Amino acid sequence: MKIENLNDLFLHTLQDIYYAEKQVLKALPKMIKKADSPQLAKAFEGHLEETKNQVARLEQVFEMLGEKAQGAECPAIDGILKEANELIGEIKDADTRDAGMIAAAQAVEHYEITRYGTLVSWAQLLGMKDAAKVLGETLEEEYGADKKLTKLAESRLNKEAA
Amino acid sequence: MKIENLNDLFLHTLQDIYYAEKQVLKALPKMIKKADSPQLAKAFEGHLEETKNQVARLEQVFEMLGEKAQGAECPAIDGILKEANELIGEIKDADTRDAGMIAAAQAVEHYEITRYGTLVSWAQLLGMKDAAKVLGETLEEEYGADKKLTKLAESRLNKEAA
Repeated sequence: MKIENLNDLFLHTLQDIYYAEKQVLKALPKMIKKADSPQLAKAFEGHLEETKNQVARLEQVFEMLGEKAQGAECPAIDGILKEANELIGEIKDADTRDAGMIAAAQAVEHYEITRYGTLVSWAQLLGMKDAAKVLGETLEEEYGADKKLTKLAESRLNKEAA
Repeated sequence: MKIENLNDLFLHTLQDIYYAEKQVLKALPKMIKKADSPQLAKAFEGHLEETKNQVARLEQVFEMLGEKAQGAECPAIDGILKEANELIGEIKDADTRDAGMIAAAQAVEHYEITRYGTLVSWAQLLGMKDAAKVLGETLEEEYGADKKLTKLAESRLNKEAA
C-alpha cells in the first residue's frame, strides 16, 4: 500500500493494530494456561474478552472508512510476543514466571496504548469523530488493563517471586 | 542466562533495556536527519542527549548490582525499529513522514516506559532503593518525551499532513 497522506497512514496503522490484536488473541489462551496465580489467569481471561471487542471495534472503523478489514504485517508486535514467549519458556519457577508474564503483557498493552493514542489523535485531525470515539473506548480499556496488571504485579505476585 | 528468581529476571530485563537503549542511540541520528520539521528534529536531538544519560544510568545500576554492563538480545525493540524504518522509508510526503516518525518514536517511548516501570517496581520489591531511584528518573524522562511528542503531533505536524 502506498502512503501518500495522513489518510493513508491512518489506514495503514489501523491495519497494523488489527494484525497486532489478532496475534494477541492467539497468544492470550496460552498465557492463561501458563499463569500460576488464579488472579493472573482471571485477568488474562478478562482481557481476552476485551480483545475480542477491540477487534470488533476495529472492524467497525474499517467499515466507516469503506475499507475491507485486513491486517498489515507488524514486526513490532511480532518482536514483543517473540520476546515474551522466549522469556516465559525459560523460567521454571512459577512465581517468577508470573512476574515475567505480567511484564510481557504490559509491554503488549503499551504497544496498543501508543497505537490507539496515535489513531485517536489522527482521527480527530482528519475530522473522523465517530472513529475517534470508537478507538478512544479501546484506548481507555488498554489503560485500564495496564493499571490492573500493575496492581497485580505490586501486590501478590512479585512479592512471592522475591 | 538462567532465570531462577526475581533477581535474575531483574538483571535480564536490565540487559534487555540496555540493548534497547543502545539501538535507539543508533536510530536517533537517522531520525534527526529525516525529520522535515525543525521542531521535530530538535525534539529528537534533545532525546538523543537524554538517551545517552539513560545509558549511563543503566551502567550505574549494573555497577550497584556488581554486574558487568551488557545487553541481551531484545526482539521487541528490534521489531519496533524495523517497523519504523520500513514505514518511514515508504513515505515520500515530508509532513506525512514526520507524522509517521512521531508515531514510531512514541512506540519506542512506550516500550521504554513499560520496561522502566517494571524495573522500578521490581527494584522496590527487591529492596534496591538506589536502583529504584535512578531508574525512576529515567521513567519520568520517558513520560516527558512521550508527552512532548504528543504535543508536537497534535499541533503543527499532523495538521499539515492532513
